[in-house]
Amino acid sequence: MVNYPNKKDVSKLEKSFHNFANRGMNFEHAVNTSNDYYDEVKRAIITKRPTPIHVVKVDYADNARIKDAYFEKQSTADYNGVYRSRYIDFECKETKSKTSLSFGNISSHQIKHLEKVIFHGGIAFFLIHFATLGEVYLLDAKIVCEFYNKQERKSIPYNFIQEKGVLVEQSFMPRLKYLDAVDKVFFNEAQKVDL
Amino acid sequence: MVNYPNKKDVSKLEKSFHNFANRGMNFEHAVNTSNDYYDEVKRAIITKRPTPIHVVKVDYADNARIKDAYFEKQSTADYNGVYRSRYIDFECKETKSKTSLSFGNISSHQIKHLEKVIFHGGIAFFLIHFATLGEVYLLDAKIVCEFYNKQERKSIPYNFIQEKGVLVEQSFMPRLKYLDAVDKVFFNEAQKVDL
Repeated sequence: MVNYPNKKDVSKLEKSFHNFANRGMNFEHAVNTSNDYYDEVKRAIITKRPTPIHVVKVDYADNARIKDAYFEKQSTADYNGVYRSRYIDFECKETKSKTSLSFGNISSHQIKHLEKVIFHGGIAFFLIHFATLGEVYLLDAKIVCEFYNKQERKSIPYNFIQEKGVLVEQSFMPRLKYLDAVDKVFFNEAQKVDL
Repeated sequence: MVNYPNKKDVSKLEKSFHNFANRGMNFEHAVNTSNDYYDEVKRAIITKRPTPIHVVKVDYADNARIKDAYFEKQSTADYNGVYRSRYIDFECKETKSKTSLSFGNISSHQIKHLEKVIFHGGIAFFLIHFATLGEVYLLDAKIVCEFYNKQERKSIPYNFIQEKGVLVEQSFMPRLKYLDAVDKVFFNEAQKVDL
């Protein structure tokens, strides 16, 4: 049997929690520390994909230091990994609006990617942070893709997300108990959600 | 039902095949075009993780151009994705040696990552290119991890890889039929491999 290595001290994870008291820009941080926690307690292994960077110039004389480069758009989703033997792929979105999530910051490449994930039997969803309300919802990517492809609206109303999604419980550790929401939506546990 | 979008022309994929006639540095390219092909024929969706880059300085006046940055070591594996509803995670390694694959270019972080993937029920393996021999083998990551953790040797002998791994068939398209090898090793199809 292959050993499961311990990567991080739980005490270190605790420290990072306090930073999250500052809302808004720390949503991603909350997801990352939740992933560290899930890793630590051996519940799942989920990692953030690095932001793709197009490297233009490298100075090899200076220890392969990059001297010119630019950020590229992620053509996939932010996070993926394995949970309960299943493939998981998800995107985090944040809005200050209290009434809707705009499609403005969702790219068609990401929609296509998530459609493919669903086609191949993976679990795909969005974690949506309504920063002003302090609420995070998990919404099945299938619902988002259908909404997006209809193109009748340029945003998803908050009420719709509240009705079709699952509110992610927030706690001390993990900061976002989003895998409990995954259990509900994709493993039909505790609470069957009508999709 | 969510549509499965067509991303690329098969004709474009054909063109890229001819480049692979140059061996060696194009192993990664062969894996990438094989993934494009598998995507196209709706067999799997597997993507390369971007190389993580630590950004030191960004010139926002110049359209957020990166002016100073450096490459970081990948702490996970090169590729991951979803195939037959399962999570797949693998690392590509290449050697000019005819007799062994050195552990020199396998990091302990990668070993730990793959151990975690196995623990959570994912499929993890190495694709090993013996460039001089022109052969590619799929080797279950479990075997590599056990070998690595014993630390009796600093490399895996070619004979061992040949015996315990599966030779990946090469073809016109996909260039590397590595998912057939995955079927054999992880889905017990066509040919049961004794691990």
